[in-house]
Amino acid sequence: MEGRATGRKAAVRHIWFQATAAATLRAMAEKQYLLTPGPTPVPPAVLAALAEPVVHHRGRDFKAIYERCLARLHDVYRTDHDVLLFTNSGTGAFESAVANLTSPGDRALVLSSGNFGERWASMAKSFAADVVHVRLAWGEVPEADDLRAALSAEGEVRVVYLVHSETSTGVVSDIQALAAVAKEAGALVVVDAVSSLGAVPVETDAWGLDVVVSGSQKALMCPPGLGFVSVSPAALETASRATSPRYVLDWERTRAAQAKLDAPFTPAVSLVKALDVALGLLLEEGLEAGFERHARLGRACRAGVKAMGLELFSPDDDRSAVVTAICMPESIDSTAVVGTLRDRFGITVANGQGELKGKIVRIGHIGWSDVFDITTALAALELTLVRAGAEIERGAAVSSALDVYSEPAHV
Amino acid sequence: MEGRATGRKAAVRHIWFQATAAATLRAMAEKQYLLTPGPTPVPPAVLAALAEPVVHHRGRDFKAIYERCLARLHDVYRTDHDVLLFTNSGTGAFESAVANLTSPGDRALVLSSGNFGERWASMAKSFAADVVHVRLAWGEVPEADDLRAALSAEGEVRVVYLVHSETSTGVVSDIQALAAVAKEAGALVVVDAVSSLGAVPVETDAWGLDVVVSGSQKALMCPPGLGFVSVSPAALETASRATSPRYVLDWERTRAAQAKLDAPFTPAVSLVKALDVALGLLLEEGLEAGFERHARLGRACRAGVKAMGLELFSPDDDRSAVVTAICMPESIDSTAVVGTLRDRFGITVANGQGELKGKIVRIGHIGWSDVFDITTALAALELTLVRAGAEIERGAAVSSALDVYSEPAHV
Repeated sequence: MEGRATGRKAAVRHIWFQATAAATLRAMAEKQYLLTPGPTPVPPAVLAALAEPVVHHRGRDFKAIYERCLARLHDVYRTDHDVLLFTNSGTGAFESAVANLTSPGDRALVLSSGNFGERWASMAKSFAADVVHVRLAWGEVPEADDLRAALSAEGEVRVVYLVHSETSTGVVSDIQALAAVAKEAGALVVVDAVSSLGAVPVETDAWGLDVVVSGSQKALMCPPGLGFVSVSPAALETASRATSPRYVLDWERTRAAQAKLDAPFTPAVSLVKALDVALGLLLEEGLEAGFERHARLGRACRAGVKAMGLELFSPDDDRSAVVTAICMPESIDSTAVVGTLRDRFGITVANGQGELKGKIVRIGHIGWSDVFDITTALAALELTLVRAGAEIERGAAVSSALDVYSEPAHV
Repeated sequence: MEGRATGRKAAVRHIWFQATAAATLRAMAEKQYLLTPGPTPVPPAVLAALAEPVVHHRGRDFKAIYERCLARLHDVYRTDHDVLLFTNSGTGAFESAVANLTSPGDRALVLSSGNFGERWASMAKSFAADVVHVRLAWGEVPEADDLRAALSAEGEVRVVYLVHSETSTGVVSDIQALAAVAKEAGALVVVDAVSSLGAVPVETDAWGLDVVVSGSQKALMCPPGLGFVSVSPAALETASRATSPRYVLDWERTRAAQAKLDAPFTPAVSLVKALDVALGLLLEEGLEAGFERHARLGRACRAGVKAMGLELFSPDDDRSAVVTAICMPESIDSTAVVGTLRDRFGITVANGQGELKGKIVRIGHIGWSDVFDITTALAALELTLVRAGAEIERGAAVSSALDVYSEPAHV
């Protein structure tokens, strides 16, 4: 049939084809690359789950999904204790820890070395805690000795708030060692694992972490909107006596509902469905395999950055598997770099936050990331910096990243 | 090609076809009907928006969506004041009102006649408000005189909490009249419009409503996970002095961020995208046309219920456009009816809550609902009740509903 069209018909088809091709080119959706440390890219199967018809949160269809999703969260958290799920940001889940563990005047210690640690200090103050804020410089790696010294100087502290992965700087701390010091001092340990859970090892029970806070939109490969906390029996016991007002973030109300596969308030059912699929993918890869992949992505990214002759802001060690923070050359403003990457190449990376705004670029490599996401970011960054006048040997970054990625990681 | 397959190949294809057909029949996804008063069915275009790749909440792609979505929310709210958006349930948005307007000991009045009104009383008590709880029986319609009498008996009250649509009973109150009484007494007016906004008229500014709380999963045709509050200047002024601790639900922090098209904490970007599409559909139909459709759906549902010889629990008036609550015959437990509708027909309706559990069935008709959703629910309810021994004339309900729906509504 096609071959036999002649004369006017063929001409019409030809014009139509040209017009369509032109329109398609004009309307062609820009291809985009999300390379921030959260939100992170979401696998197609997870997006497809989001598009399924809405189900009722108290119906049997949802209960089956909810039960499986909570079981998978336990596996990812490596805990036998309750993991409470909130329709909220990671910050909201963190607030649940502060609200449920604080009575006005309670002694709390916050060890910070970046934006998120400082947020927890300001949050604990909002709840009228008596906050000892051990404020390290942004980008410092908090050490067990810093915490030990602070705890012995300050006397009794009820709760210690720690950051596992400080997303603002790329520092991943040795949370096992820090938690051990806090436990020695008799304090409850609350850990911000928003960007680390699923990317680097988090042994909730084995390391004695009383409360581990996380969120859906980082290594768990889901859109933002769900936050979680694991709660130890000791944390629940403290919560039962804490007098800060709270309602939707109340742990006991949430725990009691979840025990009956219910939620006290309508949860974001579509996001829970998506999370269930995402956690299934994560567990199918295997947590250990995922940790190794993240460590290799981090090494590849750092190797590329160094091959470009740029300075790393985040530490050059294997724990830095979440986000790589890169210092810009003196004369170049990272705000402009981030803007160019977005506007010319469709690539979204993160600027510095707070005092680091304009100074660093952060490339996230958590969740649904592979080495070609890293090489895409490095290649575009290289071109952008060269055009801005930086002296960089073209092509070295991508090659180095690929070479290092193929070496086995030592986690 | 197809026609020429013979012998073994044809036989293989034939067996394959039979096996596939059988597998398809076995695996055929049950067709489901969501007819609860929230979550409600979501239009395909809204589901499709959910499945789009995740964007960063601080990138320009999201900002364009966010700006349009907030503007559309203003249109739906009919307000020039701020409408604050939270990643939370409707209850979470309501908690923001209590947390931002309450200092311990503040006098607040809650007028309740059902589950949600009672929840607000318990929530205000959690925040140490001095609560005057005017507790009407479940299903009563709160009248302006009830409120006037309570306010003059109680002396100064700082905040009055009202329920526009009491989803647990189907009662939609005359919120304009109630708000006028509260304003007369000098109180701030907080209105729960979670299931009414977009279904029945809500004139935020014209009626002087200081705070109107709503959620994404009811008449706004979106999955659950987003809550909203409109805040008058007087409400913001009170909030600036209120001492209850709050962080993610803090109005001023949220307002300041939104003024720069930012959000203080990572919002559920996929849900915001979906909400933007849903609000676009709502405004395209036109709010007034939507109100008329909802009124007609309510009338159709009530006509069908009465034609079956059943008693209405919700009032038989045109304001009852959100959910129709139906009394079960004496001998029949609504829990069993709800279970049968789900298990045999794939239809999800709501049971009674609290003291009404087992006694009523609630059919929601808000959001993406049309009259054939109503007739589906009525036809299945009729069959279920007949099989349970009720004496009901078959077919009358569906006919009556369709007849009444085609008459013009008088809203």
